[in-house]
Formats: sequence, C-alpha cells, structure tokens
Amino acid sequence: MDEINNIEVVPCTESDYLKPFRVHYNQNGTKKSWDFMRTHDSVSVLIFNTTSHCFVLVKQFRPAVYMCEWERTKTQPCEAAEKTEEGASEAVASGSESREDRADAEGGSSSAWPPAATGITYELCAGLVDKPDLSLEEIARQEVLEECGYDVPASKLKRITSYRSGVGVTGSKQTMFYAEVSDDNCVSAGGGEPREGELIEVVKVPLHEAMTFAYNERIPKTMGVIFSFIWFHNNMSPKYKISTNV
Amino acid sequence: MDEINNIEVVPCTESDYLKPFRVHYNQNGTKKSWDFMRTHDSVSVLIFNTTSHCFVLVKQFRPAVYMCEWERTKTQPCEAAEKTEEGASEAVASGSESREDRADAEGGSSSAWPPAATGITYELCAGLVDKPDLSLEEIARQEVLEECGYDVPASKLKRITSYRSGVGVTGSKQTMFYAEVSDDNCVSAGGGEPREGELIEVVKVPLHEAMTFAYNERIPKTMGVIFSFIWFHNNMSPKYKISTNV
Repeated sequence: MDEINNIEVVPCTESDYLKPFRVHYNQNGTKKSWDFMRTHDSVSVLIFNTTSHCFVLVKQFRPAVYMCEWERTKTQPCEAAEKTEEGASEAVASGSESREDRADAEGGSSSAWPPAATGITYELCAGLVDKPDLSLEEIARQEVLEECGYDVPASKLKRITSYRSGVGVTGSKQTMFYAEVSDDNCVSAGGGEPREGELIEVVKVPLHEAMTFAYNERIPKTMGVIFSFIWFHNNMSPKYKISTNV
Repeated sequence: MDEINNIEVVPCTESDYLKPFRVHYNQNGTKKSWDFMRTHDSVSVLIFNTTSHCFVLVKQFRPAVYMCEWERTKTQPCEAAEKTEEGASEAVASGSESREDRADAEGGSSSAWPPAATGITYELCAGLVDKPDLSLEEIARQEVLEECGYDVPASKLKRITSYRSGVGVTGSKQTMFYAEVSDDNCVSAGGGEPREGELIEVVKVPLHEAMTFAYNERIPKTMGVIFSFIWFHNNMSPKYKISTNV
C-alpha cells in the first residue's frame, strides 16, 4: 500500500502539463467560446495472460482522483461513506440522509486527508501518443513492456476500437488494443519508468473473477477496464471457454 | 449540420471552467507533485425507447474535439485522411506512408480549419453533478428531460455502474444509468438549455443497428456509448429478443 503524506495544494498559474486555451467561434451565427486544453491522444491495452488465464492491469496512486475524493469529504461526505457499506448503490440512495463529518467518521483524526487508498485506481495499461514516428501499435507495445514487463511484437496487438476519451475539457482520442501474452513473454517486473515518476503496480485479475471485478463499484477503476472485460467476454469467451455470467 | 466559422484561439489565463491546481506530496518517502483540475462528478444515461426500439443519443459540436482534430491536421495529417477511407483500421495502418497537407487534400482551401463535422460527437445523455441537494438519479432525470425531452420518474432509472471518467487531469467519477422510455414520455424536443449555450441534437439509433454503430470507428463517439450498447446487448437482449452479433 502506498504511503502518502505531506500534502500541499497550491493554485497552478503555469504548468508544463495543463495548457488551457480559449476558442472563440460562431456556431450557426451565434457567437460562442469554450475553454479547453490541448492534450495527446492515447492508447490502452487489454492484456490477457494465456498461461495463468489472468488479465494484467496496472494499479497506481492518482493524485487527481485523490484530490477529488478529498474534495468529496468536504462537500459530499455521504459518498465517502459508500465505500464501507455492503451495497454501493443502496449507500448512495440513502446517503443524503446520513451526512456527517468525514474526519469525525474516521475516528477524530487530526488530519482531514483521506487514506491513500482512496486515490488508487485499477486501469488498463495505457500511454500517450507522443512519439510521432511510432505507430499506435508500437506505442502500445512499449507501454506493455514498460508498465507490465511483457515483450510482445507490435504485430500481435489487435485493435479493438477507438473513441473520444474526452469531449469537454480535452477532445483526445483513445485507441484500445488487445494483447495476448504468456509467461514466456515476461521479461521484467514492469512498473513503469521511475525516471518519469511512475510508480505502477502490476496486478492480475483471474478470468473467472473478471465480470464480478468489472461491476464491483467498490473497486475503483476506469471505464476502459469494464468495457474491455466485457468485450473479451463477448468476443474471446468461446476460445477460452468462459462460463461467467454478465 | 452545424456551421462553424470565425474561429479564434487565444491562451486562457483565467477561466471559470478550468481551474488548475498543483498538489505536492510524498509518496513512499519520495517528493512528488502533480497538476490537476477540480471538476464535478457526472452522470450519463443510456436511454432506450421501447416504442420505436431505438437508443436515444445526443449529438453535439464539441470545441475541444474540434481543436484536437485541427491540431491533428497540422501534426498528423495521415489521421485526418482516415475518415474518408473505407476501412478505418487499414487507413491507420497505412497512414504513415501517405502524409500530405490537409489543406491541399481538401482541395486547396485557403483556410486550414477542418469541417465542423470533425468536432461533432455522439454521446450518451449526460450532465454534471453540481446540485448537492439532488440525488444522482434526480440529476440524471433532469438531463434526460432537458437534453432528450423524455419525462421519466427518477425511480425508473436503473444504475448500471460507476467508474472514474478521468484519472490524469481530473479524477472525477461518473455513474451510468439506464432509462427505458416510451413515446408517451416524450414531452418536448429536448436539445438542452439554450441559456447554458447548449445546442444538442437528439438522435435515434435503431436497436438492430446498435452493435454495428458501436464498433464503427468512423462514427465519432464516447466510450460510454460503446460500453452501454454492449451492456444492453448482454443484459437486456433476452427481453427485447435481439439477435445482433457482437
């Protein structure tokens, strides 16, 4: 489990990562404007290990998620309580009647910062398309190697589909791939590029638990994990003889 | 089709919508920092019209998507060509060999701005969770009414699941609902709140075309559309006797 402390939030007046722009335009004769950010397209990869019949995901502390949860403890403490309840949807339905101060609920801790675990998410192996000379497949291949430690040729990556990963703030496109790997392809422990500040944990989800994992709202994850698990269920299950219900 | 012109892009030094922050923290003893933006959680709703056996989606011009495509015409002209090709995945695979100036490809237009259509996306009916007194179901209900013109009680909304809609820049959570409507519930044309600058077109996708629509990469859409169509296929198809292949 990651240990997070010494947290300090400051306004960000200039950033190498967040570059806001404003576009003014006329839409059907009406003058409008919109604030947006430039960002790179991305790739994500559903990795299936055919030796262990497990999906390979990455798990990492996401500061933006953590800050969102911290914000929630201040404004919507009912949602924070949700994680400790048995049924997530019931907790949300009844949550508005049980608002209470999160710090108190945590046992009167002197700090209002939630535990580090609230900022951790399960995600597909993924990366930005920031190398113009490489194909999407080659970028995806590099991410599989760096983050998860499997060395597979780009030609073995199967394109699943593409979509907009953002439509409000950013408008970037994500292309999703499927990669079958085996223990023989495993050349390192993965974990990302420490140079780039990545602290990534590689986790395996057994195939027979995948659909339960996908729909368990108490496990924080991206929509890509849910969608790709269902895609696999629908498209690959005959090959791997899954009898899991959705 | 929307007409977009008089486009001007300027840096955005202060915004009511984009508020960047920087968080400094220690992770397992290592000092780190991350730039992020505060944002609201959101809801999205898969709407199925049981009278016409159609899904009800929204279609709108997204400035952030448009700017992303404009950027692409400058840096990755091969991708721009993709839309005109028969097979999208083939076009991408061969795209790096056929780089050409987009303005020239468009017939030597004096303006480098791509057509408005490149900024239009198909999405689920959705909205921000920015009314603390309303439940997620009530917010979703309001969005269905405002954007798509169907008046359904909040109690009829079925929670599908929730996930992180962002993990890098924002860390917000989205909860997805399913709403069955009929023509009898249709009380207006929808189209969003013009006061809020929304120009939303309500579109119907017939059930028997849904899976083809979902995986057609030439139709710009969010992952939520693809995931929810497949969720419906897996969970509702017995009820509606679908024989569509995935």
